[in-house]
Amino acid sequence: MGDAISVEELQLAARNHGMPLEALRWDVTPIGLHYLLTHYDIPDVDAESWRLEIDGLVDRALSFSLGELRAMPSVELAVTMECAGNGRAHVEPHVVSQPWLLEAVGTARWRGIPVAVLLDEAGSRDGAVDVLFTGLDRGVEGGEEQAYARSLPLAEVLSGDALVAYEVNGAVLPPQHGFPLRLVVPGWYGMTSVKWLSRITLLDVPFDGYQMRQAYRRRMHEDEVGEAITRMAPRSLMVPPGIPEFMSRSRVVETGRCEVVGRAWSGESEVVGVEVSTDGGATWFEAELDDDALGRWAWRGWRFVWSAEPGEHELCCRARDAEGNVQPLEPPWNVGGYMNNAVQRVSVTVA
Amino acid sequence: MGDAISVEELQLAARNHGMPLEALRWDVTPIGLHYLLTHYDIPDVDAESWRLEIDGLVDRALSFSLGELRAMPSVELAVTMECAGNGRAHVEPHVVSQPWLLEAVGTARWRGIPVAVLLDEAGSRDGAVDVLFTGLDRGVEGGEEQAYARSLPLAEVLSGDALVAYEVNGAVLPPQHGFPLRLVVPGWYGMTSVKWLSRITLLDVPFDGYQMRQAYRRRMHEDEVGEAITRMAPRSLMVPPGIPEFMSRSRVVETGRCEVVGRAWSGESEVVGVEVSTDGGATWFEAELDDDALGRWAWRGWRFVWSAEPGEHELCCRARDAEGNVQPLEPPWNVGGYMNNAVQRVSVTVA
Repeated sequence: MGDAISVEELQLAARNHGMPLEALRWDVTPIGLHYLLTHYDIPDVDAESWRLEIDGLVDRALSFSLGELRAMPSVELAVTMECAGNGRAHVEPHVVSQPWLLEAVGTARWRGIPVAVLLDEAGSRDGAVDVLFTGLDRGVEGGEEQAYARSLPLAEVLSGDALVAYEVNGAVLPPQHGFPLRLVVPGWYGMTSVKWLSRITLLDVPFDGYQMRQAYRRRMHEDEVGEAITRMAPRSLMVPPGIPEFMSRSRVVETGRCEVVGRAWSGESEVVGVEVSTDGGATWFEAELDDDALGRWAWRGWRFVWSAEPGEHELCCRARDAEGNVQPLEPPWNVGGYMNNAVQRVSVTVA
Repeated sequence: MGDAISVEELQLAARNHGMPLEALRWDVTPIGLHYLLTHYDIPDVDAESWRLEIDGLVDRALSFSLGELRAMPSVELAVTMECAGNGRAHVEPHVVSQPWLLEAVGTARWRGIPVAVLLDEAGSRDGAVDVLFTGLDRGVEGGEEQAYARSLPLAEVLSGDALVAYEVNGAVLPPQHGFPLRLVVPGWYGMTSVKWLSRITLLDVPFDGYQMRQAYRRRMHEDEVGEAITRMAPRSLMVPPGIPEFMSRSRVVETGRCEVVGRAWSGESEVVGVEVSTDGGATWFEAELDDDALGRWAWRGWRFVWSAEPGEHELCCRARDAEGNVQPLEPPWNVGGYMNNAVQRVSVTVA
């Protein structure tokens, strides 16, 4: 890891929690264990007066109460969501922001209404190219006072599976996950899935607010325009085997048969394989993939049986997707510390 | 704050999450926002085969399935729980452990069976003085492999309101809060409330396991025996007013009427007052206490109307209890960084 962590980063780490990696054992992450990043504060939303507005370049501006949305036909999707900054604390030189190690991920069953259905009802006018999603969470970032807002190309929304969701894992959205309504964009990093959604606006030019223009871009220098961050790069993570030491989190594993299990996902194309190394990446073995019972947008389980022999070992795992993308051995660097999908490394002592 | 945070501390901060302070607005903390400290890993407990054993110096050793416990008469208690290490990141010199700022707190409604009822059914034999609670979470700490285990004096259990709880906020315990059963000890710091409870054992001497003998003691030098940490010292926290800057969490508040609200609690005796300062602690004003609708073991709301004038201000709050204990202005220090209940300080810019 890079430099030590400052008090500002600690303030973020204390608010924004990851998923402890042993929670990879659940195919659907229990509420409270899913990762959570809140740019500003969790807003206090009155569900009675709240409405979802659909406006901009539409044939009919629409406005829905929560009850009206809940009365519409709904779909449920299992979606793995990861923060674009997951892995940031491992990049060097050090990047100052929310200091995620590897835990900024989770999988949930989201229930709601396809955004494409809502846009079909509103009717998109000629010239509409971008769909802006605005949340109720407000703060200051990059010197600008703003509501959190992100956009997606209209074509992406119409061809994709994006939902506005009012339930997670069969329950009403908790406040921290966007009550009463949030966007969920399968396959994309989490910054896309605007929480506390209040407005959907069709635009004739791509939205260039702070979260599009400044944040969430891959740049090698501060003054570059950079490239927008979109879909999740392939990643696999394992449940750290054995038992932990409280402070160091180093692991102790018993000699003998040890089933190493984990999950893998990719927003680009399907995961087609996961490899495991027990010697720090020198040699690799193919893990067995579970079926994809949760569907295309959720992680896929994998397992590997290791004959653990006494001594020190470094376990690693790496996923590859259908397009041939493979996780790198070393963390990639960029100005924002985004998209670091370097292989996980878990040191274990077998005794 | 003291020194910068190490990677080991960051690993803990990424796993163990606090309650974002805006969640003080809810009298009962929504699931997923309550603070959580897990010494080892969250264990994977099979509820079908799980049993609660009651043994040691009892007339009748007992064993309960989850179904049997759920069929017994139950009680529900609203309890504010705080980590004994809350505030640790503010003490100087720096103490290395889970680096809590102020967020290690939450209030929940726990449903279960009074421990005193279970002990009455088992019958305590002459000479029993201590009640040991053992969890299913295992790890290494202080060089010892152990299951997490803590005890309470028998007299404390028989006279107090300690529960074994199988529900929180009306729902089945989530894994991270101790599924299928946990101890909840009102008024005491959170380390007492053993999660993933599997065994209750009556002993003829006070239990001296690692979490009693070594951890959770107040010492000024490593080699002192020190004093056991027990009940929560008085503390008040406010919802930081206005809106935050993403990285620094500094606050911007509009000029004019600003209602500052918060919660206060004490495990020692009842909170009888909260004072607010808007000038960094030079002058103090009495806040208005809400009624104690949640009962003795939960925090109590308070509010204070501030006429915010343009400029920089430091807001503080401090609680006092019926025994005259008041929060200190400066963080107290001890080897473990425990029980730092110094007043909260929130810098705001009014514009």
